[in-house]
Order: sequence, then structure tokens, then C-alpha cells
Amino acid sequence: MSIPDIFSSHPNRQIGSLGETAILQQIRERLAECIPSGLEGPFDDAALLPREESDGLITVDPVVFGMHFDQSMRPREVGRKLVNRNISDIAAMGGTPTRAVLSLILPSNASVEWLDEFLRGMVAAALEGKVLIVGGDLSASHKDWIASLTLLGKATSRAIPRHGVQPNDLLWVTGKLGGSLHSGHHLNFSPRVAEGKWLACQPTVRTMMDISDGLGKDLPAMLETFSAYLDETQIPISPAARELEKKSGKSALHHAFNDGEDYELLFSTEGNLDIEEFTREWQKIFSTPISNIGKVLPGNESNQSKPFIFRQKIESSDWKGYEHLC
Amino acid sequence: MSIPDIFSSHPNRQIGSLGETAILQQIRERLAECIPSGLEGPFDDAALLPREESDGLITVDPVVFGMHFDQSMRPREVGRKLVNRNISDIAAMGGTPTRAVLSLILPSNASVEWLDEFLRGMVAAALEGKVLIVGGDLSASHKDWIASLTLLGKATSRAIPRHGVQPNDLLWVTGKLGGSLHSGHHLNFSPRVAEGKWLACQPTVRTMMDISDGLGKDLPAMLETFSAYLDETQIPISPAARELEKKSGKSALHHAFNDGEDYELLFSTEGNLDIEEFTREWQKIFSTPISNIGKVLPGNESNQSKPFIFRQKIESSDWKGYEHLC
Repeated sequence: MSIPDIFSSHPNRQIGSLGETAILQQIRERLAECIPSGLEGPFDDAALLPREESDGLITVDPVVFGMHFDQSMRPREVGRKLVNRNISDIAAMGGTPTRAVLSLILPSNASVEWLDEFLRGMVAAALEGKVLIVGGDLSASHKDWIASLTLLGKATSRAIPRHGVQPNDLLWVTGKLGGSLHSGHHLNFSPRVAEGKWLACQPTVRTMMDISDGLGKDLPAMLETFSAYLDETQIPISPAARELEKKSGKSALHHAFNDGEDYELLFSTEGNLDIEEFTREWQKIFSTPISNIGKVLPGNESNQSKPFIFRQKIESSDWKGYEHLC
Repeated sequence: MSIPDIFSSHPNRQIGSLGETAILQQIRERLAECIPSGLEGPFDDAALLPREESDGLITVDPVVFGMHFDQSMRPREVGRKLVNRNISDIAAMGGTPTRAVLSLILPSNASVEWLDEFLRGMVAAALEGKVLIVGGDLSASHKDWIASLTLLGKATSRAIPRHGVQPNDLLWVTGKLGGSLHSGHHLNFSPRVAEGKWLACQPTVRTMMDISDGLGKDLPAMLETFSAYLDETQIPISPAARELEKKSGKSALHHAFNDGEDYELLFSTEGNLDIEEFTREWQKIFSTPISNIGKVLPGNESNQSKPFIFRQKIESSDWKGYEHLC
């Protein structure tokens, strides 16, 4: 099926011509499968959460047209991405996603058809991830097309923070890194929920986060004032990053460090962990690759301008990471 | 103090020039008073909520530059508005606001100074409303300046839905209506939290919502397929609406019905309620005015094109209400 234009030039296909009541009705119908039964709609003043244990975790992330997606991408995939990038944040705390509210902020020429397909994608990902959409809001923008999802999650016995590494902690990543925007991985990834929950149950796991801005930026964020020794031969490089190397003029390692939107887990464990035993236990349960990429160096002198020491000499331009807003 | 420009022409006063890390640091420092102590900052992958009873209520609402505010308004007041319009949604369920996450979606030329003042206003309102800000996200837009707040709340013994009126139910509003944008009420209102909680404890109260789009649009939303008899002499008209009447060429009643952003409570009670007794009990506790404006008509024939019958004849143009996106 061809991709509808996100902004429509046909007045009767623009959300502004339908009016708020009709659009809210369409959204409500489209999301029906994800709305808990017996709940006062998702468009009361506030949503009433089904009674359950306390959720404990909350995260919020948007998708913005021209930033996180563009006209070349299928709206269903963009809808999936919005749900899954939030699920990935809950997974990175070792939690289970539960309920969400959606804030749509759209210009009046936003296409009704594109929005409908986008919501279908959200519903598919929400059903897969067992997420109920319990509320929402629709507001107008001048130009930007924005959908922001707030997702609640239940913490496992403990939630794993991103900060708190100790000297000699081992550093690990799941999956393979790089080339996500090139390969379409950023639209089609599976959030590492089961993996995150398993890791939250291992007392040796100390810190965890998901890789959204690229290892080159996310690892320093985890390390704070610490530095790390990295074995670059152990960085798991995706086939997409290897393919990009042939045309971009940059190394596959550069792509693995900087491309971002990997939605893999980066975590640290105590330094005295038995690496082989831990890897064996992981492989009994998961087919997702796991890589021990290095360790935290002793000494906590602040060295944010050079947070990594590599096994071999590597150009510093290889680990700059993705900077928003620049 | 003069109002800083929301978009800055000085490169070193634009958030894009500072970069994400520095901006997040500034946001974190500015919000420090609202961040629960002992919590992993508000910028982990997901926020960990302090252990407490289940929150039960959740709502989300943004402020968008050019839609909900403009350059003429003080950024602190806009920050207060973002927090208070969400608190008003929790109040409209009869709940108590508890914790929030903030999603900022800003263009790269957004002014650092304006943002800082905005956050100060948010903090002031959050402290007043006893709201903790437990998480957040910063993303880039092309042009629109958007801050979206998701607010959790605790339900009182029961949450009051907006739907479910019965024939002969009495209809009530708090406060006075109209002229909110003209008088600045939309920036400086006090959300009706205590009033909403008291109403949630009265078994005779059936439905409730806050008036954000104007009585002319919000009351039909509450009525669904029902119609209402309204005594227009009982509609509480604000001084601002009376002042506007002199220059707008529209009646004060038109302003009370249509201006919106009143952030007052609209609620229904059982029809056999003792009106005087109920009003007396209210006045023992609150100085906020309360008005019985009419009642739900028997018969539930769908008549959305004419949801009101007035005591006197009134032009239908008087109750059209605010339509988003048009």
C-alpha cells in the first residue's frame, strides 16, 4: 500500500475540517482494542487506572515528524515506534510495561488517513507489549506533528538505575549496534523487556539503560565521572553498520558507536562476576546476543572529554554520539 | 521585569547552542525542589515512583506557543498554567494530584532564559499543588514550542466520571464563567482540588468535569444523548464577561458560554437533592460560589444539535463552545 501524505492538501482529508469531536471519536474507535473494558473512556478529564498494584515506573517519549520519522516511513511503523521506544525505557529499568496515555499535538492540515494508520500501528505494538491505553489528549500545533506517549510500568523486585557504576564493574550490551536508521531497525525493533526483567533478577547487575543516542553518548552518561576500558573487538557491530562502512567513509565501529536508536540494553555487573557462567545462563534463555565490551576503570577522576580507553588506538571522532538539538 | 523573547536571535542564548547535556542539567537544577529526595533523577530511562498507594488517576495536557499562550504572557505564568490545567483535570475526577512527568519539545532557537522562567513557574505551581515532578524528556521540534505534562493523581473513595447523567439530575457549576483569556484568569486560576474532593465524598454527586472549552461545549459533552433545561439567569457570569460585553458586540452570557478556560467544575447531582441544604453545606466550607444552573430533561432522544432548552428564548449562537483545530 502506498504511504499517505502526513499533511493533506485536500481540505476534507485534513483533521481541521472534521473538527475535534469527530477526530476524538475516530481515535477512540481506533484505540478500542487497547482500552481496558469497564473503564470510563480514554477521554475523561483524567483516566481512571484499573485497580492493581502500584505501577512504580513512568516514562515519556514523543515522535516528532522530521526528527524521529519522515514521509518515507509507513505510518503504522511510526506508531509502533512510539509505543516500542517507550517500552524500551521501561525494559531498561527491568520493568514490565502496563498502561499509557497519548498526547497528540497536530497541525490542522494533518492527514486523517495518515493518523488512522499511525494509530493502527500503535494498537498493534500495544497489544504485543500488553499495554493498555487509558487516556489521551488532542491539541493543535502550528506546524509540527507530534505524538507523545507516557507509559507506566511495574518494577520487578527491584528497578535497575542507570547510574551507580563501581570501579572494575564489567560493561555489557545486548544485540548488535549501528545502522539503525539505515536498516529500518529503529521502526521494527523488539524492546528487550524479557531480557531486562531477567537482568533485574540478577543481583550482580548494577546499572542499566537502553541505547538510544548511541553507545558513544549513552555509555559516558552511565559512567558519569568514571572512565572505561573498552575492547573494540568485542563491540557487537550490526550487518547494517558493516554495509554503511562501504559507502559512508566512516568505519563500521563509528556507526556502531554513533548512529543511535539501537534500543538495546547497556548494563554493568559486579567486576568479580564469572563472565562465562553469566553468558551461559543468558544463552539458556535468550537468543539475543550478549557482549562483554569492557569494564569500568579504577579511579573516579572526572574525564568526560576522554571517557574511554580502547584496547587499540582509535580516533576520538569514533565515539562522539548523537547530540539532540544541534 | 520585562518578558524575554521565547525564541532568541542571540545564538548563545538559544538552547541549540548549549547542547542537550547542558540544557538537561539546567532543567534538573531548576526542577530540584519538585524532585523527590532519594529518587534517581528525573532523567533516567523511566522514573521510579516513590512507593505509595496506587495513584489511580492519570491525565495529560500540553501548552503550545501560539495556542495556549503567546509572547505577551510571562513565562512563569505559562509554567503555572501547564501545571494547574492538569491539576484541574485531576480535581474534576475528585482526586488529589501526586506526581508528574514533563515532555519538552522545543525548536533549537528556543530561548534559554524564557525556558528557565517557565520552569520556575512550574515549580511554584507544583509546590503549591503538592506535585512531585518525577521524570521528563527533552526532544526537538522544527518550529512549535510545546511542553506536555502527564500528571498522576490519587482517587478519593470514588472517582467521579464525566458521563452517566440521569433524567432530572440537577446541573451545577462552581465559580463564575467567561472572559478568562481577557482577564488573565486562564493563567492565574486556582484548580478546584478541595472542592472536587468534597464533591467526590457526596453520594448524591453523579458526574463531574472541568470547564475548559466553555460551558456551551462541555455541558453537551457531559449530557451525551440527553438534553438540559437551563435557567440562564442562574448562569454565573464573571465580571470579565460583563466587561467584554461592552466592546465585543456579544452578550455577557455568550462569553460565559463560549470563552472557555474557566477551569471551574461542572457537575450533576441526583434530582431529588435538597438544593438549599446542599448549598448551605457547601458554603460552610468554601467561599467559591456554587450555582444550580438547571437540570437534565427526561427522555434521552439524541438531540446534539439542540442540547439546551432555555428558560427564556436565547439565540443558538450563544452556546456554540470552543472547537479545537478549526
